[in-house]
Amino acid sequence: MPKAIIIGGVAGGATAASQLRRIDETIDITIYDKGRDISFGNCGLPYNIGGEVSRREKLIAATPESFAEKNVDVYTRHEVMSVDTDKNTVMVKDTEENVELEDSYDYLILSPGAAPRTVPALLDVPEAFVLHTLEDLDLIQAHIKMTGVNKAVVIGAGYIGLEMIENLVERGLDVTFIHRRESIYAPLEDDLSEFFAAEMESRGITVKLNTEIVEVNGGIATLTNGEEIEAPMIIAGIGILPQTKFLETSGIKLTETGLIPVDSTGCTNIDNVFALGDAIETTYQHVDQKTNVALAWGAHRMAFVISHQISGDKSAAFEGLLGTNIMRFFDYDIATLGLSEKEVSDYDHFIVDHKQRNKAGYMEGSIPIQVRLYVGRNDGRILRASVVGKEGVDKRIDILAAHIRLGGTAMDLANIEIAYSPPYSSPKSVLNMAGYKTIEKMKKLNE
Amino acid sequence: MPKAIIIGGVAGGATAASQLRRIDETIDITIYDKGRDISFGNCGLPYNIGGEVSRREKLIAATPESFAEKNVDVYTRHEVMSVDTDKNTVMVKDTEENVELEDSYDYLILSPGAAPRTVPALLDVPEAFVLHTLEDLDLIQAHIKMTGVNKAVVIGAGYIGLEMIENLVERGLDVTFIHRRESIYAPLEDDLSEFFAAEMESRGITVKLNTEIVEVNGGIATLTNGEEIEAPMIIAGIGILPQTKFLETSGIKLTETGLIPVDSTGCTNIDNVFALGDAIETTYQHVDQKTNVALAWGAHRMAFVISHQISGDKSAAFEGLLGTNIMRFFDYDIATLGLSEKEVSDYDHFIVDHKQRNKAGYMEGSIPIQVRLYVGRNDGRILRASVVGKEGVDKRIDILAAHIRLGGTAMDLANIEIAYSPPYSSPKSVLNMAGYKTIEKMKKLNE
Repeated sequence: MPKAIIIGGVAGGATAASQLRRIDETIDITIYDKGRDISFGNCGLPYNIGGEVSRREKLIAATPESFAEKNVDVYTRHEVMSVDTDKNTVMVKDTEENVELEDSYDYLILSPGAAPRTVPALLDVPEAFVLHTLEDLDLIQAHIKMTGVNKAVVIGAGYIGLEMIENLVERGLDVTFIHRRESIYAPLEDDLSEFFAAEMESRGITVKLNTEIVEVNGGIATLTNGEEIEAPMIIAGIGILPQTKFLETSGIKLTETGLIPVDSTGCTNIDNVFALGDAIETTYQHVDQKTNVALAWGAHRMAFVISHQISGDKSAAFEGLLGTNIMRFFDYDIATLGLSEKEVSDYDHFIVDHKQRNKAGYMEGSIPIQVRLYVGRNDGRILRASVVGKEGVDKRIDILAAHIRLGGTAMDLANIEIAYSPPYSSPKSVLNMAGYKTIEKMKKLNE
Repeated sequence: MPKAIIIGGVAGGATAASQLRRIDETIDITIYDKGRDISFGNCGLPYNIGGEVSRREKLIAATPESFAEKNVDVYTRHEVMSVDTDKNTVMVKDTEENVELEDSYDYLILSPGAAPRTVPALLDVPEAFVLHTLEDLDLIQAHIKMTGVNKAVVIGAGYIGLEMIENLVERGLDVTFIHRRESIYAPLEDDLSEFFAAEMESRGITVKLNTEIVEVNGGIATLTNGEEIEAPMIIAGIGILPQTKFLETSGIKLTETGLIPVDSTGCTNIDNVFALGDAIETTYQHVDQKTNVALAWGAHRMAFVISHQISGDKSAAFEGLLGTNIMRFFDYDIATLGLSEKEVSDYDHFIVDHKQRNKAGYMEGSIPIQVRLYVGRNDGRILRASVVGKEGVDKRIDILAAHIRLGGTAMDLANIEIAYSPPYSSPKSVLNMAGYKTIEKMKKLNE
């Protein structure tokens, strides 16, 4: 009976295990995870702080016990220390018992994920937290309850940082936001991001840009300019780094930044070793370029592909990613897809900006949506798109993702027959109009 | 200087005139409309009754005066009585002055639209109204204001009928809904439509199905079963019929039901006569079959195509329609696209039903969306789709429209990289899951 070992039991690993068990009843499946919990909805963690996820238990999709019922063995607090791809073995450390054991596999699925970055000044500061696991959530909740803290400092403007700002405010805390740069949200263009600071100020959040914490002492944080601020709780949301150091001696290829390159079957350079989740390097779907997208959609899709590949269905394939992403920040929805601003500068392109109301303009409550397209000069390809507004942003970015995936150009957006009724759109939708604008612009460029 | 005559100045005709003027500054353009007003948002009319369109003036996109500034001649209350396609002339009746005049054209654009149907019992009943034009709106508003009526009867369950129910309730009136059939909303499957009656009853609307009004006398309506009900205001929303009788002697081909067949350039059987809007017969986009879609999106798109064709840009083409449509009914959003239930029965297909929450299930306020796909047995083509729910329905139907347009199959829905964050979707969205379900089903069928 073949045996699959899965390293990492959160979104990617747990989904791969479930899928594999569903299509193959006999294969041996073992999950090792170095954390306390598996299969929790880590994108939902911030919302338990604010209360939109009313009970933390709702975030747990599966447990070692529920996996045991499906004949999947789960070992938590078991950290894989190294992999030997010649012998098809892993060295695993039981971090509770502090013993090491060896296990062997026919198939290895790597889903190590990424770990939150932090800054030196926050190391060993008891009131400084990250939010990446259910354990982290429990620590934060306990800190809030036990200390009755009513102030928090959030540093960094990754998804977690910004979502925590929203949720801490929702929880009733006074929040100070500290960011080392001027521009707040890296995925979005600066000139589209002006609402971030305005929105924060309107909600009573103290915003301190271009500064960092250099030291924390007794609940007081000192900033680079010498200013001291109350910091009885600090949340660092400054991004993540792939957790792949344990693979350095494995023979599994890693990029310079520690990502695991995979092909369209999810396979690494070693043919019985697969990888998925936040630590992989894949390709963009719409251009021939490598990328890393640390988002859940790709992990779930790759879990399907890998489980089918292992179980013998070789037709399942991963198409690469657009990096379609969205974040809610109070009343705003912010979405982008495709190349980063930096990456797109290598392509001959022009920009189409279009602002239009989300529903028929004569309807009360209609509000503007801003769409920016980066259009390939030669072929009209949509290389990158940003959408910002307070309603209907998710709809537009998803339509763009579906459209681009099947080769739709920016001009071609004019042809999408959206569902029109005054509460939902104009007869010519935001995207239709962006298409018409592109047609005009392309014509002028070709004159 | 060539001359274009446009018959009908509402959505299709007015948009064609604007577009044509924008791309061709010299062509002579004349619009004849038999009504009082042109270029009003007729899909928005019901919402002025309920107040969501706060002022009727907001519904007016252009006037004869604003067109005059663009050098477009508009004649309202001018009904075209006949067209002579040999001589390229139209006979027009000025219905205010009661005189007839002849005018000639190089290009003729037909946008006659459709007129609301009514029932014999409501003819010559002063308190019975339809809602198709701004004039109709003004009559209804005047009736409500002058009589202080606090009860209304709505008959028929077309878009206008159902939207008027919502808006009359919003306005504070007691509403009785009378429908001659058991099933309420024709575009949607009966088993998905059960909420209609429940929703109406929960809002205090009296629902009378399988009955009709046979007589109205002094504000009392008699139904087929002899029952008499108070009917101080009656709104008929029982569908529309193409207004093409004036073309019967023109040589322009009409279908048996009075529709004007057009090709992908918007051209009728006569090569300088074009048509758009509610009265045309076009083809489905995804199957080789004729259809009539009396919705604004197609009219706007065809206005672009026809104006470009006339001005010499022969590349502009109409791709046919999916009939993507949506309606809000109180808290519900109801959307469909593709073949009707009756039409789809001619295709070898299977059904995929999928119900899933609109956002991450652990989020407060996540609510279910129901998706039904009719999938071609041989090719996985999506022949028809229905989507019902209270939030996010418009997003899903629009994604489907974009996907189908570019040849995406039902299986292929699994590959759409939607934007995931807990407030917007699950990592595997409703549509992704419908795709996975289709893959499973197709596999079983092929075993």
